[in-house]
Amino acid sequence: MAALARSVLVTGSNRGIGLELVRQLAASPQAPQHIFATCRDPDGQELCLLSPTINLLKITINTVDLPSIRRAVQVVESCLEGQGLNLLVNNAGIGSHATLQSVDSQEMLAAFATNVVGPLQVAKEFLPLLEKAAKGAQTTRLSCSRAVIVNVSSKVGSIGLCLGVLEAPMYPYRASKAAQNMVTRCLAAELRDKGILCTAIHPGWVKTDMGTEQAPMTVERSVQGILAVLGSLSQETSGAFLDWEGNSLPW
Amino acid sequence: MAALARSVLVTGSNRGIGLELVRQLAASPQAPQHIFATCRDPDGQELCLLSPTINLLKITINTVDLPSIRRAVQVVESCLEGQGLNLLVNNAGIGSHATLQSVDSQEMLAAFATNVVGPLQVAKEFLPLLEKAAKGAQTTRLSCSRAVIVNVSSKVGSIGLCLGVLEAPMYPYRASKAAQNMVTRCLAAELRDKGILCTAIHPGWVKTDMGTEQAPMTVERSVQGILAVLGSLSQETSGAFLDWEGNSLPW
Repeated sequence: MAALARSVLVTGSNRGIGLELVRQLAASPQAPQHIFATCRDPDGQELCLLSPTINLLKITINTVDLPSIRRAVQVVESCLEGQGLNLLVNNAGIGSHATLQSVDSQEMLAAFATNVVGPLQVAKEFLPLLEKAAKGAQTTRLSCSRAVIVNVSSKVGSIGLCLGVLEAPMYPYRASKAAQNMVTRCLAAELRDKGILCTAIHPGWVKTDMGTEQAPMTVERSVQGILAVLGSLSQETSGAFLDWEGNSLPW
Repeated sequence: MAALARSVLVTGSNRGIGLELVRQLAASPQAPQHIFATCRDPDGQELCLLSPTINLLKITINTVDLPSIRRAVQVVESCLEGQGLNLLVNNAGIGSHATLQSVDSQEMLAAFATNVVGPLQVAKEFLPLLEKAAKGAQTTRLSCSRAVIVNVSSKVGSIGLCLGVLEAPMYPYRASKAAQNMVTRCLAAELRDKGILCTAIHPGWVKTDMGTEQAPMTVERSVQGILAVLGSLSQETSGAFLDWEGNSLPW
């Protein structure tokens, strides 16, 4: 089995789904040649549990701080030695359970900044490296072995499903994830002709700091599913909103 | 024909669709008893062209400035003399044509603040007056003669249609309108049991400052359609995304 991608960058990889993505990628028999595990503080405790290997580099990215993204692009570009970046996983995000009663403008704006502006800025700044990977690929088909942007989204951000799952109002989180889905879709449309695929993935309700212990699924199982879905991405799923089992979700 | 609503408040009523909504409501043979035409600067030129009548009050609301919303609630409450507010039209909004190349975080955040946080804050602050109208109504059916929040949205904010209409990338505007649609849907779900209906309306592509002269439709025709759609709202269209002709749009 071929590697999912030659090079992968994951944001928010200090814990939860981001950390597990990096763990499983690094442990794969066909590990990517380069794994860039990024977060605001890569010296943070949990990521340090990973043994540094030749293919894993921890880099600082605060997705709401443009200079930190630009510094990371330089580091990644230098490591890739003329090759492009195949797979960008925009995983960093924040939750919010604010209700209509408790919500205020600051919480709305903070969720939007981290969950929408952050991924968009990261995609924009890494675009030259993604384009390089797309151009350098030996195939014209869209896939993770060419160039892919994955935005980790949430079913809670599905406007269509909203009326049925209002138990948790979560105005800032829901609004930000719907907006993020729109950005995914715009990127998919704009970048398809450049050979870059863009997709939104719902990881399921997972036992993480954000998902809480109440969640029904382990992070290991969610990430196994996500990696299988990433391996199956193609032209047909460009601009799609998929769950960790590959099922399509309504916008 | 009965009045659409006893009392109506429109934000962004200094020009374009907001101004025309106020004009047609005021000119109707069955005009609402109270029309609150709000905008950031109600002494601005165009709104002054409207003759002040006994049922039209111009009030300052800057939808991103919470104190200005709260002052307006006090004025409206005082005018309504114990009655509630039947119809809130969140029309104020800003456009943005930023592309992936030109977009920056400030433009993303500004569009989100005005197009999403603004309407949410206005809805939240006027909620007690809307609840009063819903409770005081002589019917249990949802309609504009009871209590309605209308968020003026845009087809460009449809995530589902995005791949087909990418001629104008408009990242900030599209993301903000998708998020606003989510807020509409959350409000619809949360407020239905309180007798308040909430709906998103696409006014069409209209010859306004935002729509430009290239637009195919006059503002008069769009607003005639919107008012007809508002008159037809019911339980079935709570949480819907409708165009000015009443057609349902995908999220």
